[in-house]
Amino acid sequence: MTRVIVFKTQVEFGDCDPAQIVWFPNFFRWVDAASRHFFVASGVPLWSELTRTRGIIGTPLLDTHASFKRTATYGDPIEIHTSVPDWGNKAFTMRHEIRSGEHLLAEMTEKRAFVQRHPQDPTRMQAIAVPPDIIAMCA
Amino acid sequence: MTRVIVFKTQVEFGDCDPAQIVWFPNFFRWVDAASRHFFVASGVPLWSELTRTRGIIGTPLLDTHASFKRTATYGDPIEIHTSVPDWGNKAFTMRHEIRSGEHLLAEMTEKRAFVQRHPQDPTRMQAIAVPPDIIAMCA
Amino acid sequence: MTRVIVFKTQVEFGDCDPAQIVWFPNFFRWVDAASRHFFVASGVPLWSELTRTRGIIGTPLLDTHASFKRTATYGDPIEIHTSVPDWGNKAFTMRHEIRSGEHLLAEMTEKRAFVQRHPQDPTRMQAIAVPPDIIAMCA
Amino acid sequence: MTRVIVFKTQVEFGDCDPAQIVWFPNFFRWVDAASRHFFVASGVPLWSELTRTRGIIGTPLLDTHASFKRTATYGDPIEIHTSVPDWGNKAFTMRHEIRSGEHLLAEMTEKRAFVQRHPQDPTRMQAIAVPPDIIAMCA
Repeated sequence: MTRVIVFKTQVEFGDCDPAQIVWFPNFFRWVDAASRHFFVASGVPLWSELTRTRGIIGTPLLDTHASFKRTATYGDPIEIHTSVPDWGNKAFTMRHEIRSGEHLLAEMTEKRAFVQRHPQDPTRMQAIAVPPDIIAMCA
Repeated sequence: MTRVIVFKTQVEFGDCDPAQIVWFPNFFRWVDAASRHFFVASGVPLWSELTRTRGIIGTPLLDTHASFKRTATYGDPIEIHTSVPDWGNKAFTMRHEIRSGEHLLAEMTEKRAFVQRHPQDPTRMQAIAVPPDIIAMCA
Repeated sequence: MTRVIVFKTQVEFGDCDPAQIVWFPNFFRWVDAASRHFFVASGVPLWSELTRTRGIIGTPLLDTHASFKRTATYGDPIEIHTSVPDWGNKAFTMRHEIRSGEHLLAEMTEKRAFVQRHPQDPTRMQAIAVPPDIIAMCA
Repeated sequence: MTRVIVFKTQVEFGDCDPAQIVWFPNFFRWVDAASRHFFVASGVPLWSELTRTRGIIGTPLLDTHASFKRTATYGDPIEIHTSVPDWGNKAFTMRHEIRSGEHLLAEMTEKRAFVQRHPQDPTRMQAIAVPPDIIAMCA
């Protein structure tokens, strides 16, 4: 069984565009929050703490595919069902179902990696192996 | 030859996250602007005018795939090179290359459709055939 | 006694800037949501319904003063305590206290008006008298 | 004579709300960019460089007053005219006029301070005296 964590939010007036519907970059905003919440709900410390203790800055996005089925407007509740169907070596796959009530609004599949600052150049980042203890916490 | 329209912007401080790099939903924000600019630069009227004259509200996103190669930080210039490699019947494909100086930051492929309000239910939208005159303007 | 409605949210990673703290325009985003929630919690219909039934589009901001006392970072809970200390004729005053746990983060005072589309020019808006029935609902 | 620096941008579709006008937190987003551009245009290094060389993280907002006169919609050009009418000891006053073509859209007055990390607690910031060499560059 794959763990599924649900992140809840709500569409606000300012999240909607002149067509009265959610302006789509906001779906990515919520999914990024859902991704972080998945780790927090699994007991993984905040990135700010992992930066101090292990040099792990976060899990930037390498690749994403999103399919939009239906839209929503302000006042609508949003639930994002997040899971990790695949833990690779250098990157992992995260899956998000965005729902409102009984409706599926969108599906997203992400490839993300754990990164550290580059030891020679702190303005760059480099992917590290997905930490086994973090995989174990999220199982 | 496919027309390529370039949209320019710049990374601002507030576009960056605690890792000091562009927070990725902002790439989708800029790409949405680049999509609209492609039509404006081709002579297509603003959506607000097309809503009045032809009931066309815009070109919402149905599907997107994005691949992130390299990041950027505030002060960096951004160029988005946008083209339409395929005009389908009910939907068209839009392609964006996001560049900063000599670097390719990300590539995105979008499927979008032209939509109108549903005649029986103005809170819903429905895709229409891609208008041939708009295809002609963008060729 | 003035009614106080509390709106709750949470600071996300993407709400923070390279200094690791909330990027201040997000406080205005949350306060705008708190303003809408004040009316919803008081039983006032959504703006989309009031647009249909009474031509009332919403309550755009005319003037705001914000004082920032303390900042917050991602993971921090946010509570916005909203009230209307003064109902004027053409505009009303809204007050927001933004709190995180025991700390006061910011105080904002807004002047807002109820508006309709201009009868001769639908691209413009005009303020109307603050509707007495809405004042009564919010008392 | 006070130096005035002009920052230019444009309203995009996604900057507008269901009332078809600029959603007001976006004005604060642009003004924050204009504030940073004022310093860059005056020759002050990026905050990321000042953090390395002098521990100066930036100029967070302490207080702001904004008055909205007129709105704008997507496609409209935006010009922000920024100046510093007063350099205080611990904080300075910044003034922004937001214009679109011949119209004044909004006026904002900000109080900002230069800050460093707190020496005992890097999660906190503390205001420092406004650096005289930066005042000289901006004069």
